Amino acid sequence: MRKKTEHSAGRYAYEGLDRILHEKARLGIMTSLITRPDGLLFVELKQLCALTDGNLSRHMEVLREAGLIEMWKGYDRKRPQTLYRLTADGRRRFVDYLAELERVIRDARPKAARMSQPSRAPGKVGWVPA
Amino acid sequence: MRKKTEHSAGRYAYEGLDRILHEKARLGIMTSLITRPDGLLFVELKQLCALTDGNLSRHMEVLREAGLIEMWKGYDRKRPQTLYRLTADGRRRFVDYLAELERVIRDARPKAARMSQPSRAPGKVGWVPA
Repeated sequence: MRKKTEHSAGRYAYEGLDRILHEKARLGIMTSLITRPDGLLFVELKQLCALTDGNLSRHMEVLREAGLIEMWKGYDRKRPQTLYRLTADGRRRFVDYLAELERVIRDARPKAARMSQPSRAPGKVGWVPA
Repeated sequence: MRKKTEHSAGRYAYEGLDRILHEKARLGIMTSLITRPDGLLFVELKQLCALTDGNLSRHMEVLREAGLIEMWKGYDRKRPQTLYRLTADGRRRFVDYLAELERVIRDARPKAARMSQPSRAPGKVGWVPA
């Protein structure tokens, strides 16, 4: 049975790794925002995620168009500021994404613990490195 | 102290998410291969990761150029076959990548459990949705 499960079609396809969320910078942005339900200012996100103004703006636009974040305008000590928060849908979708990420780790981690790599050729006779 | 750590520059930058490994299809390929130290045939990988011939070839080329996998040519019941395995370096780098992925989950997961999303406006007076 185990063998069959391991070989079933799409076993390692990880369809739940939403392309919008799986991008490295956006993953950092979403993680920052989920730790702060009251939101984060543009300047805070920029620092936390080590992104330039241009890069952060571009990623926030992608997340906003996907309905994952909301944007608020206001003032902090008379200086105009932009605040971002996850939407309810954004939070839900990010939680689903994290569950899929945990599945990757559950699949890979136990095997990764065995650090031995076979140095010999594959078991069958006549195989050559290509 | 906690506050400071949470706000330190690059706290959520996740520099360890190697761009070659973080791509969704390649993540599936690497996970498949780490579960099988003796390697997997092209046809097996294709099925496990639900990829087309063209897509799988392209991703295997990227992984091979990065020194993460090795390729063997041989015959299985007289039919030419291609077998792939992780290199020692590939295994090491993938284990490092998985550790960074676990860091993302550790950062995001505890907060994700609290499903409540504040529906009111940000705490400060005068903020408006943008």
